Amino acid sequence: MRELFQQELQEVQERLVEIANLVAEAIERATRAFTESDVSIAEGVIASDKTIDELAVELDELAINILARQAPVARDLRVVVSALRVSASLERMGDMATHIAQLARYRFPDKVVPKSLRSTFAEMGQLDVQIAKKLAELLRTQDVRIAEEIRNDDDRIDDLHLSVFDKVLGETWKGGAEDTVDATLASRYHERFADHAVSIAKKVQYLQTGDWIPVEGN
Amino acid sequence: MRELFQQELQEVQERLVEIANLVAEAIERATRAFTESDVSIAEGVIASDKTIDELAVELDELAINILARQAPVARDLRVVVSALRVSASLERMGDMATHIAQLARYRFPDKVVPKSLRSTFAEMGQLDVQIAKKLAELLRTQDVRIAEEIRNDDDRIDDLHLSVFDKVLGETWKGGAEDTVDATLASRYHERFADHAVSIAKKVQYLQTGDWIPVEGN
Repeated sequence: MRELFQQELQEVQERLVEIANLVAEAIERATRAFTESDVSIAEGVIASDKTIDELAVELDELAINILARQAPVARDLRVVVSALRVSASLERMGDMATHIAQLARYRFPDKVVPKSLRSTFAEMGQLDVQIAKKLAELLRTQDVRIAEEIRNDDDRIDDLHLSVFDKVLGETWKGGAEDTVDATLASRYHERFADHAVSIAKKVQYLQTGDWIPVEGN
Repeated sequence: MRELFQQELQEVQERLVEIANLVAEAIERATRAFTESDVSIAEGVIASDKTIDELAVELDELAINILARQAPVARDLRVVVSALRVSASLERMGDMATHIAQLARYRFPDKVVPKSLRSTFAEMGQLDVQIAKKLAELLRTQDVRIAEEIRNDDDRIDDLHLSVFDKVLGETWKGGAEDTVDATLASRYHERFADHAVSIAKKVQYLQTGDWIPVEGN
């Protein structure tokens, strides 16, 4: 019984890593679609989000099944409950990648943002890809040092997010309303993507350090 | 044991209703702050979000405690797991109200959006308040007809959300970049607020009808 249980926890973890890898792939392709205005890559991202959603639901069913059959307590219980929350956050990260891809598709064949913001969004995209890859690694290894790295990457994303508004609201901004809407939304999606990663990283960290649910920020 | 368990489930439900009522109050005040550019109401909303966050964490702890002590199965298990998800969505709804209040505070003493969009945002705000009140009622009564109403209200919010972009990207739009950013963000926050309510309504519906976790949209 105990051994089976450990195997099941292992499977939960492996499935979370699998979903995190798909999310990393999604944000990588969404960023490419956004940067290169590639509508076929964008459509690929949008189509593959369904897989992430389904895997998240299947994982939830497995977790609930484990709760019902094994009635875990103490740390084991928290691991299973955490998995439910991590899957919800991963699912939202997939949605953010999809939203970024949708922006690229809406504006095709135009580029999504004007030249003056391209390097900012390129960096945001790279950072989000890096964060997603680190997140998969964190879920695989449970190495809390990676959680710290993710939090640092998120700080940089937050700075870039603010810099987008500085630019859009600054005197030199020449973009039209469409550019302003796109920049606002794209920046928000990148920032939320990283926020979800931080929220997952905190859960892994708290589980490792024995503490529990942190109060979430905004 | 069984009786205690039913009492505990009852308490979980009551606490969800309590949080939902606070969320309804928050969005009502956020909408007022936004519409009337009232910075002191805005600050009240922002300050009281901490209470919602804390109540959500306490509810999560109660739910996990019930899982550990009672090891519920079947529908009871799903009720408790649902409560964890509902509390997470309510917490996010509180964040959306806070974001709307923050927009009002940033732009003070200016109004947040230009005249041409005020009636649209007034309607979005009213609908979100209505949705939040219905949500508290749904959680209290478990009457699934209310869930249907919430989904209809959300459809209207989605229409209004699209109409904001039509206006902002239309030829008659005279707003500057600041107006465009504010309208984009405010509309997104209202839409997300309603989305979270729908997500909760679906969970209540599925619990009542015996089905379970729906695949979430975007």
